[in-house]
Amino acid sequence: MKPSTWIVNARPFGGAPMDVRVTGAVIDAIAPHGERQPAPGDTVIDGAGALLLPGFVEGHTHLDKTTWGMPWYRNAVGPRLIDRIENERRWRAESGHDAAAASRALALAFLREGTTRLRTHVDIDTDAGLRHLEGVCDMRAALADVLDMQLVAFPQSGVLKRPGTRELLDAALANGADVLGALDPSSIDGDPAASLDVTFALATKHGKPIDMHLHEPGDLGAFTFDLLLDRVEAHGYQGRVVVSHAFCLGALPDARRGALLERIARANVALLTTAPASVSVPPFRETRAAGVTLFGGNDGIRDAWTPFGSPDMLERAMLIAMRYDLRRDDDLAAAFDCVSIEAARACGFADYGFAPGMRADLVLVDAETVAQAVAMRPPRRFVMANGTPISPEFTR
Amino acid sequence: MKPSTWIVNARPFGGAPMDVRVTGAVIDAIAPHGERQPAPGDTVIDGAGALLLPGFVEGHTHLDKTTWGMPWYRNAVGPRLIDRIENERRWRAESGHDAAAASRALALAFLREGTTRLRTHVDIDTDAGLRHLEGVCDMRAALADVLDMQLVAFPQSGVLKRPGTRELLDAALANGADVLGALDPSSIDGDPAASLDVTFALATKHGKPIDMHLHEPGDLGAFTFDLLLDRVEAHGYQGRVVVSHAFCLGALPDARRGALLERIARANVALLTTAPASVSVPPFRETRAAGVTLFGGNDGIRDAWTPFGSPDMLERAMLIAMRYDLRRDDDLAAAFDCVSIEAARACGFADYGFAPGMRADLVLVDAETVAQAVAMRPPRRFVMANGTPISPEFTR
Repeated sequence: MKPSTWIVNARPFGGAPMDVRVTGAVIDAIAPHGERQPAPGDTVIDGAGALLLPGFVEGHTHLDKTTWGMPWYRNAVGPRLIDRIENERRWRAESGHDAAAASRALALAFLREGTTRLRTHVDIDTDAGLRHLEGVCDMRAALADVLDMQLVAFPQSGVLKRPGTRELLDAALANGADVLGALDPSSIDGDPAASLDVTFALATKHGKPIDMHLHEPGDLGAFTFDLLLDRVEAHGYQGRVVVSHAFCLGALPDARRGALLERIARANVALLTTAPASVSVPPFRETRAAGVTLFGGNDGIRDAWTPFGSPDMLERAMLIAMRYDLRRDDDLAAAFDCVSIEAARACGFADYGFAPGMRADLVLVDAETVAQAVAMRPPRRFVMANGTPISPEFTR
Repeated sequence: MKPSTWIVNARPFGGAPMDVRVTGAVIDAIAPHGERQPAPGDTVIDGAGALLLPGFVEGHTHLDKTTWGMPWYRNAVGPRLIDRIENERRWRAESGHDAAAASRALALAFLREGTTRLRTHVDIDTDAGLRHLEGVCDMRAALADVLDMQLVAFPQSGVLKRPGTRELLDAALANGADVLGALDPSSIDGDPAASLDVTFALATKHGKPIDMHLHEPGDLGAFTFDLLLDRVEAHGYQGRVVVSHAFCLGALPDARRGALLERIARANVALLTTAPASVSVPPFRETRAAGVTLFGGNDGIRDAWTPFGSPDMLERAMLIAMRYDLRRDDDLAAAFDCVSIEAARACGFADYGFAPGMRADLVLVDAETVAQAVAMRPPRRFVMANGTPISPEFTR
C-alpha cells in the first residue's frame, strides 16, 4: 500500500476538528479528529486546530501581462480603454517583456498563497502572434504537477479589426489554448454580429468553451449580451460560456435586468466579476437568486493596465464582500465560494472540493471561521496542491 | 548639545536619497545623503535606500468599538442602519466589551503600521454615559508620547431621541473630547433644524470643531448639508467642520452637486471618505477641483458593524485609489495624500509634514515610489513617532 499524508486536527470551513488522509493526489478519507490512526510510514501534518479550506480558484487573470517580481512599472497612461490597449502593446514591444518568466513568477506566488487552479487569458494579437501563448504553455507544463491552469486565447485588440487575428486564434486553439476568449464585440469590433459569429465558428470548430470580456455599459452591454445568448442557444453552447465583467447588469432598469438574468440562467452562462469598486457590477443576491453562477477573479495583476491585484484570493474574496456590502459571517462565506467552488464550477475544474475522491488541494490558515479568513487574510500556514505539500522554497 | 538621531540614505516620497536629522521630537535638518556628518554621540539609522514617508494620519475611526485582538465577532445582524445601531448597543452591554483595552490594542496596531496621528469617534449615549470616553481618554494619556489622538464625542444614537444625550455631550466636551460629533440630523433625529441647532449650540459653547456623519442619500443628504452650511455661515464656523461620508455628493445631478461643492468650498468644510465600494461617494477630481479638502479613514475596524478595516493606512489609500479608479502613479500619490497631508489639514494636526521644524513622524518602507507603496503595502521597515523609534516590542 502506498504511504499517505494525514493532515490532522484541522477544521474544514471552521467546523469540528477532522483528520484528512491524502494518498497520491487525492483526498481519500475524512474522519473526526483522532478516530482513525495513520498507518506506519504515513506522514502526519499537525493542523493545530487551524481552519482548513479547499485550494483557491482564480477565475480570471492575465499572468502573461504581469510585472510581478520586476521593477515597479510607472503608469502614466490615459484614461480610455483604447489608451490602455495601445499603451500596453507598445510597452510590451519596447520593453521586451518576457511573458513566460513573468507568468511563472506570478503563478508561483498564487500557489504560495493557496491557489491551485486558475484560468488565465493570454494575449493573441498580430504583433505578438502566439509568442505569449507559447511562453505560458511551457510554463504550464513545467508546473503541471501542482498547478492546474486553463489558458484562454484572448484577442486583446478585438477579432475583426486586425486581419490575421482569426487565423491566430484558430492556431492558438489547436496549440494549447483551452478556451476561446472574446472582447466587447460592439465597442471594440464595431460589428457585434460578425464578431460573435467568428467567435462561435472558431469555438465550435475546436469544441472549446468561450470566455467573453464584456465591458460594454448599460443598454449597449445588454444588447450585446442578447446577441451572445442567441448564439449560445443556436449552437447548443449552454453551460460552456462565461461572460466576464458584465458591468451592464449593474446599470439596467430592474425589469430589463431581471429578464436578462432569467435568460442567462436558462443558457447556463456564468458571470465572472472582479468586484471593481469604481464601476457597476452584476447584483450579488439577485444574480444568485436567478440561478446564475457568479464567481471571482483578479483580472490583471500589477501590469500596464493596473497597479492593483494580488495572488491572494482571500483578498479578492474580501474585495468582493466589500463591493457587495457583505458583512455577515454567512455572506462572507458566500464571497469565499466565489473564489473556490463557484469558480471551479464555472470554469469546469474537475474533482474540485473538500470530499473523498477529490483532488488534494488544501490550505490551512489561522482563523476561527471562513468569514475571519476572508476579512483578515492570514498568512498561509500550509498549502497542498494536487497532493504535494508546497514549501516556501518551492515557490521562490 | 542634545544628541540627535539621523535617518540616512532614505528617499522622501521616492526622490533622491537624503539624510534626516531628528532632535527631540522634531525634524531639524534634511540634507542630500552624505553631505553632512552626524555628530559624535548621534544615533544613525540606515535607511538603505528605502522610501521615506511622513507618518500616516487616520482621519476617521472608532477605536472604542473594535474587537481587535479579541476572538472573532460572528456577525449575524440585519441590513438596516437601525439594526446595526441596536445590535451594537446590545452587544456592548451584554459582552462587557472594554473600550479602553480594545482601543489600546488597535491604537498600538496603528502605530506599528506607521500611523502617528488619528481622529477617533467615541460613542456617547444614555446607556454607557461617558464610560467609553473615560476609557479612551486614559488610553490616550498613556500613549501621548507617541500617538497624537483627537477624540470626537459621538452621539451614535442621535442627539434628540434619547433625553439626556445633550447633557452628556456637554460633559464630554468639558472632559477630554476635542471635537463634537453628529449623526444624520434628518434620518436619525427626524428634526434636522433642531438637531443641528443643538450641535452648534454645544460646539460654540465649548469652542470645539464639529465632525458630522452624514449617510443620508441623494437629495435628502444634500438638503441636510445645506442646513448645516447655513449654520456654518451663521456661526462663523468656516474651516472648523468636517462632514464624514457625504454619500449624497456621489448621487446628485451634476448641477446640484456642482453648486453644493462650491458652497462647501466657500465654507471651508472638509469631506472625509472611507471610499466604500458599495455606495456612492463624493467624486474625487471634482471635489478637489472645487477646492474642497477630501481625506480618508477607515471608519470602524473589525467591530459589531463591520468585519473589515485595517490599521494599515496604506491599505486605505489603496482602497481609495481602487474606489476612484486611480491607476497612474501621480493619482496613487494623491490617494496617499488623503491619508497624510490632507487628513492632517482637515483635522488640524499641527506641525505635520516632511520639513524642518515639523514633528518627527516618519515611516520607511521598501518601495521605489509612493504609488508602489500604496499598491503593495509593504511591511514597515521603520517607524518613528514624535521622535521615538517604535520597536515591535513596544507595540505588542
